[in-house]
Amino acid sequence: MGGSPVGALMNPSSIAIVGASNNFTTMGTIQCMNLLTCGYPGEVLPVHPKEKTVLGRKAYPSIADLPYAPDLAVLIVPTRLVTGMLEAFGTLGTRSVVIVTAGFRETGEDGRAVEKTLQEIARKHSMRFLGPNCLGIINTHLPLNITVGPTLDFQGKLGLASQSGTYLAQVVSYLHKNGIVLSKAISVGNEVDIDLADCVEYLGQDDATKAIGLYIEGIRDASRFLEVARRVSRVKPIVAQYVGGSEAGARSGSSHTGAMSGPQHLYEALFEQAGIIGVESIEEVFKVGWAFATQPPLKGRRIAVLTNSGGPGTAIAHTCDRHGLTVPEFSPETQEKICAHLQAHASGRNPVDLTFHVDMKAITEQIPQILFESDEVDGVIIHGIMDTGFMELLYPGMSRFVDIPKEKLLSMMKVPLDPLVEMPHRYGKPLLISTFFGNEDNCIRTFQEKGVPTLDAPEKTGRAMGAFSRHLTYRQRPEHQVPPDAEIPRDAGSILEDIGPAGLDEFQAKRILRAYGIPTPNESLAYDLQEAKEKAGEIGYPVVLKVCSSRIAHKTELGMVCLDLKDEAELVKAYQGLREKDQDSPVLVAEMLRGDREFLAGISRHPGFPPSVMFGLGGVLAEALKDFSMRFAPLSSVDALEMLDGLASRAILGAYRGMVPVDREAFVNILVNLGRLALHFPQISEIDLNPIIVVGGKPCVADALMILEKPSP
Amino acid sequence: MGGSPVGALMNPSSIAIVGASNNFTTMGTIQCMNLLTCGYPGEVLPVHPKEKTVLGRKAYPSIADLPYAPDLAVLIVPTRLVTGMLEAFGTLGTRSVVIVTAGFRETGEDGRAVEKTLQEIARKHSMRFLGPNCLGIINTHLPLNITVGPTLDFQGKLGLASQSGTYLAQVVSYLHKNGIVLSKAISVGNEVDIDLADCVEYLGQDDATKAIGLYIEGIRDASRFLEVARRVSRVKPIVAQYVGGSEAGARSGSSHTGAMSGPQHLYEALFEQAGIIGVESIEEVFKVGWAFATQPPLKGRRIAVLTNSGGPGTAIAHTCDRHGLTVPEFSPETQEKICAHLQAHASGRNPVDLTFHVDMKAITEQIPQILFESDEVDGVIIHGIMDTGFMELLYPGMSRFVDIPKEKLLSMMKVPLDPLVEMPHRYGKPLLISTFFGNEDNCIRTFQEKGVPTLDAPEKTGRAMGAFSRHLTYRQRPEHQVPPDAEIPRDAGSILEDIGPAGLDEFQAKRILRAYGIPTPNESLAYDLQEAKEKAGEIGYPVVLKVCSSRIAHKTELGMVCLDLKDEAELVKAYQGLREKDQDSPVLVAEMLRGDREFLAGISRHPGFPPSVMFGLGGVLAEALKDFSMRFAPLSSVDALEMLDGLASRAILGAYRGMVPVDREAFVNILVNLGRLALHFPQISEIDLNPIIVVGGKPCVADALMILEKPSP
Repeated sequence: MGGSPVGALMNPSSIAIVGASNNFTTMGTIQCMNLLTCGYPGEVLPVHPKEKTVLGRKAYPSIADLPYAPDLAVLIVPTRLVTGMLEAFGTLGTRSVVIVTAGFRETGEDGRAVEKTLQEIARKHSMRFLGPNCLGIINTHLPLNITVGPTLDFQGKLGLASQSGTYLAQVVSYLHKNGIVLSKAISVGNEVDIDLADCVEYLGQDDATKAIGLYIEGIRDASRFLEVARRVSRVKPIVAQYVGGSEAGARSGSSHTGAMSGPQHLYEALFEQAGIIGVESIEEVFKVGWAFATQPPLKGRRIAVLTNSGGPGTAIAHTCDRHGLTVPEFSPETQEKICAHLQAHASGRNPVDLTFHVDMKAITEQIPQILFESDEVDGVIIHGIMDTGFMELLYPGMSRFVDIPKEKLLSMMKVPLDPLVEMPHRYGKPLLISTFFGNEDNCIRTFQEKGVPTLDAPEKTGRAMGAFSRHLTYRQRPEHQVPPDAEIPRDAGSILEDIGPAGLDEFQAKRILRAYGIPTPNESLAYDLQEAKEKAGEIGYPVVLKVCSSRIAHKTELGMVCLDLKDEAELVKAYQGLREKDQDSPVLVAEMLRGDREFLAGISRHPGFPPSVMFGLGGVLAEALKDFSMRFAPLSSVDALEMLDGLASRAILGAYRGMVPVDREAFVNILVNLGRLALHFPQISEIDLNPIIVVGGKPCVADALMILEKPSP
Repeated sequence: MGGSPVGALMNPSSIAIVGASNNFTTMGTIQCMNLLTCGYPGEVLPVHPKEKTVLGRKAYPSIADLPYAPDLAVLIVPTRLVTGMLEAFGTLGTRSVVIVTAGFRETGEDGRAVEKTLQEIARKHSMRFLGPNCLGIINTHLPLNITVGPTLDFQGKLGLASQSGTYLAQVVSYLHKNGIVLSKAISVGNEVDIDLADCVEYLGQDDATKAIGLYIEGIRDASRFLEVARRVSRVKPIVAQYVGGSEAGARSGSSHTGAMSGPQHLYEALFEQAGIIGVESIEEVFKVGWAFATQPPLKGRRIAVLTNSGGPGTAIAHTCDRHGLTVPEFSPETQEKICAHLQAHASGRNPVDLTFHVDMKAITEQIPQILFESDEVDGVIIHGIMDTGFMELLYPGMSRFVDIPKEKLLSMMKVPLDPLVEMPHRYGKPLLISTFFGNEDNCIRTFQEKGVPTLDAPEKTGRAMGAFSRHLTYRQRPEHQVPPDAEIPRDAGSILEDIGPAGLDEFQAKRILRAYGIPTPNESLAYDLQEAKEKAGEIGYPVVLKVCSSRIAHKTELGMVCLDLKDEAELVKAYQGLREKDQDSPVLVAEMLRGDREFLAGISRHPGFPPSVMFGLGGVLAEALKDFSMRFAPLSSVDALEMLDGLASRAILGAYRGMVPVDREAFVNILVNLGRLALHFPQISEIDLNPIIVVGGKPCVADALMILEKPSP
């Protein structure tokens, strides 16, 4: 932990703060106030040019006047002052800085230039800094809080790293009401130095943090992020929201933190490969994250649903069903045990519906005990536990008819929850509570205090449990193991060395593929009709004839591909036809593949990301259906298998309508080697293998396009 | 309104209640208490065999002892007493009854039989009743409340009909906290008499109700529901959750209210056709419903997003973008107006991000005014308005440093919202508020009181605005106009009259299609080889030859279809091959269709639903892709056009990859006429037209299967 730049930020024994005063309308003052009142045990050293004291602490007129180099400096000052102050702290010997000040890259090129300067200063002094344009950090364990929101809760379990400071500062009472307590929280701002990957790495190692939540507008270094998150997610669940994958989201993120966003599918692939649970709202980052932070993981997918009401029970069961879980009907034996605690017309099948009842013990103790003990159940969702919340509502009416003090009534209704809150960890099965009450209800408050997640709608428990199921899938993955990379195949290297400015033609592209063990049709180049006839004879009719030129990308649309030529006469006619369109290029003579399914694969590159490998449904509908999956190189064979299963139309990979199932290993081989190829040759910017025709279950790349990066001028 | 059975339930001037006592552990007593304390202005007449008074009101020992026939009777009594009491109230002259008692069809066949008896009693006395197994009704305008939850709020705008009583009774404080006030609410229970469609009809006519929310586990009479909801949704938005479309949801619903559920896609089609906004949680039923109930409808899809924080702004913009809306960058003129109110590095592009600021006027008045006035904006979402919620949090810290009474501080922070809350209706544009604060914040409380929806997460406003966009699509639909039904085509009728027990063969099925103007290939039946040769000669080669028999459903899989026979020699060979497999049936000789796209269409039937017409992507991938849309007969041409556009792969209907666009009218004709056919001939249980081949843009039904209902034994 000592080595982590975030760890140093999070555990300073002294903090200098520049930008705080005694004026409570400024951010700096409020941040300093929260630091002073949160219980921070270290020294706080305000720097202020005029004030003698700031919030009762001795203030120093300048950074140079500080008595010693504080562990951490916090800057909440006008933009133009930041570089000078960073330099001053560097000179003093401070090694960690939080730059709250905004006005950098998010405002344009000038700001970007200043950020470069900040980087240089930091490097010179071996400093690490957070921000600029961030809202600070929270450590509820030290404790330490330099955000504009106060600290209400301590010793939490959910770690947060966010590209929006609002999700640290504006959610204080929101989290409190929902019983969610953060362990550490980091507003990363423009990430000029410390970035999201650093935070994930730190939170992954932090013992106090049991699960990690991320809010993401764009990732700068996806390679490192992937590497770190994949490692961390095997140990701790990571829940993340990405909001940059739409035109408006991207524009907004760029104004906000100068975020560099990318298309939605890119981030979905990144999350999948990294083992991150992607969600669509900050509510889920917090609430699903909290469920992970407090509950044992799922070991199977069978959920017991227990309620006092059919509606929520049905809604929970339905939502579970749609999120990868089952709500199985219990065995007669289990039903019998349950029904001993039910009224005559209540159901013990699962969902277990107690219907209206006043005695809470069945729902808080007797039936949960049966469910947690049962080997038919992997996780439990309960709706309908409440006491004072409902009684407070009824009391005004009741007090008109019966003479009973409210406190007496409320204490009569008290529901003991001690046995229930211990069951999840005793039996190693997660428990989620659905409720329409908040912490005005004693039971809900107890659950929150004891770390049992309460979600304010039935469907939210089903969706959260669905996230546990996704996490189970990730946990069951074999470790990411990429075989040690073989040398660059000699043939591929020499082809690429010889390439002229025109780029690769199809024949060359396929030779490179073959060098990587990727199957292509039996084919030859021919420079005249005579040679074409000879090659066709060698290959055997029927054949395909196409113009082979690096300058022509859409051969089919231009009529430069002649399929299924049955004999020499047809070949001659086809050759002459091609020559009318193109006099100079050689032709490719290839065996005609007769397959029963078509797929496509390829690679592409995105700034900041490793090369991506794509696999999809091919054929004429491909463009309309856009059914594809993606992973980033290097690919393990597990990654590649997941890509096959990632197609919506994956059924056609099997024994679909009497077809021979595709050779999955052969496809895995294509995808893994495409990834290697992409890593070996950064000069290849794009590869399209389309179609890959399946013949007798074996894939064969019928057409291949490789595009070289345009040389920089 | 007078004619509506629900209207009579909702506005009684006297109510008898059987099952209430002075014991507060029973449901009946609590329900009676809530009726007495809600402010109900009419007479309440408890019936109790022993008590002289119930909750201070004179109690009558039996129904026969009541002084007059009350307008409404409420039964919360043991199951076995219900029929006798219904009879007694009928005899007395009461015409409306709420049967809260459970233990009927949801428990099995015996309960179903008792329900039949209830129906007969009600019919005999011209009574209408709600339930059994329901939780009662609420009318916040009379007011009237006979549920177990008390009434906190009055004079609401959102009407609710629910197959779960919990969503009336257990959500009282949940709705209150969210500022949501119901107008009328109906727990429909087992719907033996009054059903969901009656409720939608009533709420549609009810002036106090501005939008309608529905919780649905299964619909019994979908024909009537569709007819009613389609009419009502043109006037009032309807938001509905369906939870019966999964195995677990269906099982749970059946234990709950004996609900008869159906597959998810069936209900999705029903909602689409009825103009209902389908949602996936009860939270959305309430919160989106409340947004509709209080805000003007969208007239376009351009949303302005205004925040004090980049994170929520980006999240809202992203969510809008993914839900059918745009968050367009403002014109330079508008940006200039906005930027006059922003700090230097804040963005006015849209989202407008004020960044941290203390003066609320920019976000509550000045910029909203610009946005509402602008003709670049159709709807507005704001995040970040707050006052006391945040200041209450900060006060404990501040009071350690400055001597200021809390009330003074809070009143200094008071934000005037009067101009803002009036803007939506003045400019006819919806306003949604995103916030992490609840009604502990003055601003949020003010919004709630003034009927501006506050949603507790940025993404929820984007999704709710997305629902407004779906509603706009529905509102812009032409009225549902089905041309007056033509007579049954004579040819079709006579074919069906002549059908033997073996059912229809392909040739007969296609003759029926032709009678409905649905295009089929040029084809003829042949009984021997000679005849086959003659017909093929007439049709012209290449031809298709297939066995034609009503007994054989999967001809292709059995090798009984020979495609693309180029000449007589191939025909002869094919004929002989078919004869080896089937000696008796005639063969169908048809022109060979060479198309560029394949679709499928059909009809199917589901209990309680009108016949459904289906349209989908055809071809070999159809089964794997399951890309289809559905509507219920009778279909208007608008319905049929929406079915075409309902395919995920709809791009291939157009000028896809150089193909001739399909003739949409010709497809509409097929679908509308399939619907007519299905209504004309209830004995046809299923039709599959697969493939429908597109040749030169025109559809032609290459194969047709019609299955007759099995005659009941």
